[in-house]
Amino acid sequence: MTATNSDKEKDLEKLFKIIHNVKYAMLTTVNEDGTLHSRPMINKQADSFHGELWFFTQRSAHKVTEVKKGSEEVNVSYADPENQSYVSISGRADLVDDHTKKKDLWSDTLKVWFPKGLDDPDVTLLRITIIEAEYWDSSTTVMQKLYGLAKASILGDHTALAGENKKLVLN
Amino acid sequence: MTATNSDKEKDLEKLFKIIHNVKYAMLTTVNEDGTLHSRPMINKQADSFHGELWFFTQRSAHKVTEVKKGSEEVNVSYADPENQSYVSISGRADLVDDHTKKKDLWSDTLKVWFPKGLDDPDVTLLRITIIEAEYWDSSTTVMQKLYGLAKASILGDHTALAGENKKLVLN
Repeated sequence: MTATNSDKEKDLEKLFKIIHNVKYAMLTTVNEDGTLHSRPMINKQADSFHGELWFFTQRSAHKVTEVKKGSEEVNVSYADPENQSYVSISGRADLVDDHTKKKDLWSDTLKVWFPKGLDDPDVTLLRITIIEAEYWDSSTTVMQKLYGLAKASILGDHTALAGENKKLVLN
Repeated sequence: MTATNSDKEKDLEKLFKIIHNVKYAMLTTVNEDGTLHSRPMINKQADSFHGELWFFTQRSAHKVTEVKKGSEEVNVSYADPENQSYVSISGRADLVDDHTKKKDLWSDTLKVWFPKGLDDPDVTLLRITIIEAEYWDSSTTVMQKLYGLAKASILGDHTALAGENKKLVLN
């Protein structure tokens, strides 16, 4: 099946509607010993989307991680149980110290997590460059993948929501 | 700080209270190309806990995954936004075809995902043996790790919920 650009735009719109509804995303990374860990990250994304997700973080929190050395494979998942919508984003993470970007994304509600504010040299941005995005949404009654099937079907898809499932390959 | 057995029991109780509140967990696995993928899994756990999580799944969904070959490192995350509670479970997954266990965990509500029911030879169980469990809970006002710090502090902890964070090493 061929997806048109406008189909893709609609899918992206839906994906970002789910994302914008969720206050905390779960970020999963692989430790040096191979174990997988996730943690909630405050989800404060820009209004316009350019193939990236951004999270405020503390440089000192990354001392023991691969992210400090370069980009790292990660997953960001979003769960919106009230609307039974779920998103999986596969991407690569790196730390970016872009003051303009920080100013753009900052709001004073973030002071709960970063009490010293935007000018704290320990406050930096974690950028996730999206490779693949997938969503499950029970607002429709069929589960389908319309496009983006370049990669193999993944574990557990069929045990997932009895709703809609779309996979978008972005990069 | 030394945690007593009763502290540990209380923490486990809290952890499983969060888990039992959540309808879909997000299961993250690593693909052969190194990318990380997650998908919602219907969360139907036993009432008593023995260091494992169980999910119904379809054998055919695992054809392209490492799980089929043996155990695989995975992460299971639980998000309960209403109560601002989050759980990360690091573990190893394998497929287990235990009919008694399947009967114990089965309920007819699962027919939405497994319409042919429990006797479908394609229906099997994914067992997650828990290595480490961590939770974040905003019902308390401090973020702390009381024990289980054998492993290094992980990325992003400090950007997480301004609430309680506990890490439990189970195996």
